[in-house]
Amino acid sequence: MKPSGYSLDATFAALADPTRRAILARLATGEATVSELAEPFAMTQPAISKHLKVLERAGLITRGREAQRRPRKLEPRPLAEATDWIERYRKIWEANYQRLDALLQEMKSTQRKAVDELVNAAKPKSKNRKRK
Amino acid sequence: MKPSGYSLDATFAALADPTRRAILARLATGEATVSELAEPFAMTQPAISKHLKVLERAGLITRGREAQRRPRKLEPRPLAEATDWIERYRKIWEANYQRLDALLQEMKSTQRKAVDELVNAAKPKSKNRKRK
Repeated sequence: MKPSGYSLDATFAALADPTRRAILARLATGEATVSELAEPFAMTQPAISKHLKVLERAGLITRGREAQRRPRKLEPRPLAEATDWIERYRKIWEANYQRLDALLQEMKSTQRKAVDELVNAAKPKSKNRKRK
Repeated sequence: MKPSGYSLDATFAALADPTRRAILARLATGEATVSELAEPFAMTQPAISKHLKVLERAGLITRGREAQRRPRKLEPRPLAEATDWIERYRKIWEANYQRLDALLQEMKSTQRKAVDELVNAAKPKSKNRKRK
């Protein structure tokens, strides 16, 4: 059974590139045109446009209505879904880890008590020793 | 300027596949051997092993010490770094969005007041009308 998760595939694939992450980081501060987005990179505008297409197809960015500038803006919903996915399993893992840790602590203290009892049983009573 | 982010590249690329996400989801509940991980999928063991290699290279899973079983277990740190990255920019976006929303509300109320004043100024005083 394969889970569907088409859009998570696209979101994570889009996030797997440092240029695309930098574009998203820039757009988090406000919308920007293609040339504004291309500026900080040593890249041609067509190269940037390719990255923008990947981000658009993943639903991570949309184009503004202004006909001339067509500024791009960030769409936060797919990002929220991506963190939701990761956090769900991270929390399950954490809960299990905490349970395991508690169990180990319990085992250690039980073991310590058992060792203490054995040591005490083997020891000659100190009062007897003093009387000698 | 290209940000480095090598390990984020690997983490997000590893997460961009539904089988690999399902493997991580399974490992969140506890460690498992390759054959245990392969069981729910209509896939050969070599196909699963390929996915496991991608997850291992990204640092998302490690192999247990037991020589025979070599159970795989989840490593939560890269997942934490991935959500940290996403959440940082989602929060910046949200803060900007809230500021923009507050500004729009302010503009609307200023506009409404100005319109009200214009309307009031244009209206003949009601008391004068009554006296006619």
